[in-house]
This record gives sequence, C-alpha cells and structure tokens, in this order.
Amino acid sequence: MRKPDAARAATYRLLIEYDGTRYRGWQEQRNARTVAGAFLHALGEAGLPVADLGGAGRTDAGVHALGQCAHLRLQQRVDPAELGRALNRRLPKDIHVLDVAMAPASFHARHDAIERSYLYQISRRRTALAKPWVWWVREPLDVERLRAAAARFAGRHDFRHFADVEKRAVRGEGTERASTLVEVESVEVAEDGALVLVRVVASHFLWKMVRRMVGALAQVGAGQLTLDQLSRLLESAPLTAADPRPAEWTAPPSGLFLERVRYAGDPPLGPLAAVSRIGGDTA
Amino acid sequence: MRKPDAARAATYRLLIEYDGTRYRGWQEQRNARTVAGAFLHALGEAGLPVADLGGAGRTDAGVHALGQCAHLRLQQRVDPAELGRALNRRLPKDIHVLDVAMAPASFHARHDAIERSYLYQISRRRTALAKPWVWWVREPLDVERLRAAAARFAGRHDFRHFADVEKRAVRGEGTERASTLVEVESVEVAEDGALVLVRVVASHFLWKMVRRMVGALAQVGAGQLTLDQLSRLLESAPLTAADPRPAEWTAPPSGLFLERVRYAGDPPLGPLAAVSRIGGDTA
Repeated sequence: MRKPDAARAATYRLLIEYDGTRYRGWQEQRNARTVAGAFLHALGEAGLPVADLGGAGRTDAGVHALGQCAHLRLQQRVDPAELGRALNRRLPKDIHVLDVAMAPASFHARHDAIERSYLYQISRRRTALAKPWVWWVREPLDVERLRAAAARFAGRHDFRHFADVEKRAVRGEGTERASTLVEVESVEVAEDGALVLVRVVASHFLWKMVRRMVGALAQVGAGQLTLDQLSRLLESAPLTAADPRPAEWTAPPSGLFLERVRYAGDPPLGPLAAVSRIGGDTA
Repeated sequence: MRKPDAARAATYRLLIEYDGTRYRGWQEQRNARTVAGAFLHALGEAGLPVADLGGAGRTDAGVHALGQCAHLRLQQRVDPAELGRALNRRLPKDIHVLDVAMAPASFHARHDAIERSYLYQISRRRTALAKPWVWWVREPLDVERLRAAAARFAGRHDFRHFADVEKRAVRGEGTERASTLVEVESVEVAEDGALVLVRVVASHFLWKMVRRMVGALAQVGAGQLTLDQLSRLLESAPLTAADPRPAEWTAPPSGLFLERVRYAGDPPLGPLAAVSRIGGDTA
C-alpha cells in the first residue's frame, strides 16, 4: 500500500459486525475470501484509495464479529457517515459497518486496544434456527462444574497449552507476542434456555485460545476432565504423554463472536446476553 | 393416506421449529419443498407409515416457526422420545422437533388450537447476522405512533382488507372460514436495540393477515398512514379508489415467526423477546 500524503490523508475508526461463516477470517490473504479483503474490494469500487486497513482481532476462519474494530487510512478525507453508507451499499450482506468515526492519525486498532471480549454460544440441543451461531454439545453439561472451571481461567496464567503457537510461528508472527502469559480479566458463564453462554475478557488473546478454553470447559462440564487436571494445564510445565491436550478440544468457530474491542475512554461492557434466543432444552 | 387401524394406530403431538427460508410453507404441495413434505420423507425413511399429519398453522412460503404444532397419526405405536430422535436424525438441519408427546386419537392440531401467537421482527438497520429473521425498514419509525396503531387492531374487527381472501378461494379453501371477523386478543410492541418486535395473539388468523397488519403498522410508524385511516380499514365497507390498500404493504415473510400454538390446559405465553439480538441503531 502507498504511504498516505499527510496533508490529505485521514484516519477512521470502523465498528463492524459480520457473519464469519463464508470467510477465512478477518486478515487479508492471497486466494482466500476474507473480511478485510471484502472491505478493500468495496473501497476500491467506491474509488477510495486505501493507505492502510487493520483490524483489532484477526478472527479465525468461520468466527463471527458483533463489534470488530478497524483503523482505515484513506488518501483523502470523506464524511464519516457518507463513508459508512458507501461501504454498506457495496459490502456483501454478511458484513455490516455499524459506525464510522474520525480518529487521530496515530490510531491503530490492534495496538491501541486495551481490552477484548469474546462471546461463545454452546447449545445443549439441536437447533433449526441458530445452527450457524452455536456449538451443539450432545453430552449433558453440569453448568455449575463448568462455572467452577471458568473461574480457574481468571487471572494471570501461562496459556501455552491453549494456544496454537506453532501456527503463529509458521505464519511468521511468532516474534510479536512470544510470551504465552495472559491476564484473563473475567470468564462469565450464563444460561439462556438451551444455550450456555461463555464470555471471556482479556487485554489480548493467543491464537485459538478462546476455542480451546471453551472446549476444556465443555470437557469439565461433561465430567471428562477434573478441575485439578484443568488447573495443571494452566501451568507452564511441558505436557506428558498421559496429559490431556487442549488442542484436541478446540471448539468450532461457529459459536464464537468477537464481541467488543475496548479503547481508552470507552464505556464498560454491557450484561452478557445471547445473540440468538433458542428455547428450552427439550428433546 | 390410508385409514389407521384403530387397534394399532397412535396419535402424537409434535412441537416443531423451523427456518422457513427454503420452504414453500408448512402444507404439503406437489412439486414444492414444504415442511410437512420433509416430515413425510423423514417418516418414510424411518419406515413409519403415516395415516395423517396436520399442522396447526399453514405458514406461508418463507415464514419461520418457533413452535409449530402438528398431529401425527402413525399406523403403529412407538416410543415418543424415540420418534423424536428418529425424526431429528433424518430431518434437514433447518427443521427440528422440540418435543413429541402421545395425544388422544381425536387430537387435531388445527381444530383444537385455542390461540396462536405470531412474532414479527422489524429491524431499523441493515444487519449482517440477522438478515434472514427480519424485515429491514429504512424509513425512521415513530414507535409510539406504531404502538398506538397496534392498539387499534385489538378486539373484534372485520379483517377483510387485511386478508388474502382471493388466494384462499382459488385454493378451494374459501368455504371453511368465510367470515373475516377476527377477535384479536392482543398486539404487543417492544423495542430491543434496533429491533421493533410485534406480537399478535388471536384464536385464528386469515391468510397473510399478520404480514399486512405489520405492513400497516410500519406505514403508520413512518408517518405515511394516519390512525384514522387505519381504523377505517378495519371496517367492512368496500374500499374506494382513494383508499390505501393493505395488500400493498404486505411485510416480507422473513420477519415472521409462528411463535406458539396454545391448547386447553397449556400455560400462558411468556414475555415478548427477540429471536435474534441485534445492537443499537447506529449507521
């Protein structure tokens, strides 16, 4: 991308929702449909030369967003509301710009974020309407045990066993956050009909971390993993052949939503609520 | 269909949810994909000969159901829970059986129903995640006016101008409920983020009645129809050339859900709530 001409350039902060089902995640990739790619295409169609576009969270293939945040640097200044309308007229129907605001030239969606929250929807039954937004867990779940497990994740832990570290290294991103220490601010669990909702809040996340946390919570809830086994996975000691592997429990992307990215001065998160309502856990 | 052998036959009450997007409604039709057709196919695959299958509400093409009710008469007795599992293993992913119960041999899903409720979701913004479940109304809506209009529908009125009466006659069903008098028990309106929810409860409904009611409510909310004009449409006098036509405002099926069918002894409806949560009405 070209360097912006400082005199004419302008930086925008975008708030975006998308259904990730059809996409290989946010981040632009050659020969793959991505959300960032859809934005660059729409901006090209609108005749707006892009100097830089960056999302706060990469989101894996198939992961959704209720509130992805991105910085967009254009080589010309346009009215933010007009920019939002121009994008929504051209973006595919499964991507929507919720808000566009002018931002300081230095605004960087990923570096400036102080907190991210992810929402995961587990469904305890088959569902005709909410299938794209949930992970259907067939085993009966003890939600109180699952809640106790969630509490173990809170605080500062070494999440190396929950991160897809090799994948990061392969992609040449291994140097950026070599540490697997993460301070998890909170893990909330709530029930809504047949749904079990899990919300994880932290300043940053490792690759696949939330999906492996949710996979582990389901293992505990189903009685296949003890709380002590879970706690041992949160230590930095290497796993032995006998240890269970969180990588084997990676929950599917369909249930995962990047809910909110918070910047200095933003209001706190609202109460945990389902994206889709589904009824009681009959049949 | 064959007459059931009374000695071996059994009647079941099914509670069903479906995403109606791909279907030409509930009712079986030659050369069209219907929800009842999917049930007959699944029951055939399961080797269960069907004597009779009838839904409480026909639901138009594209209309969804959170709680359609049906009677199913089989020529043999099977365990209800087993029947539910056998169906859910074979039904397409956009149809789900919530519950199966044994019912008296005389149980008829349509005739025995004492009350039906429909939920309609209007979205005041474009949405990436909820598009299949809403009608996006671009005009700004005055929700207090819309609520006042909803109140006019409550009570006993002649809904002939809101019913697709000709279509019923063409289909040879004109005789069954020739009267267009309907007692509407309640019309509730609620806001949830960018959604405006409308719930209509009545003992029965005329063809397309709810979609035309919601279309008229949107007209009033957008300031294009007065409350007095609406009230005149609820009288049985023929429309003049100058009168607006509710048929022109038929709201799309995507926003409509058959929410609940109530039978004698069933508990009352729960509070009005969105099927899909969508955020505030920004951009």
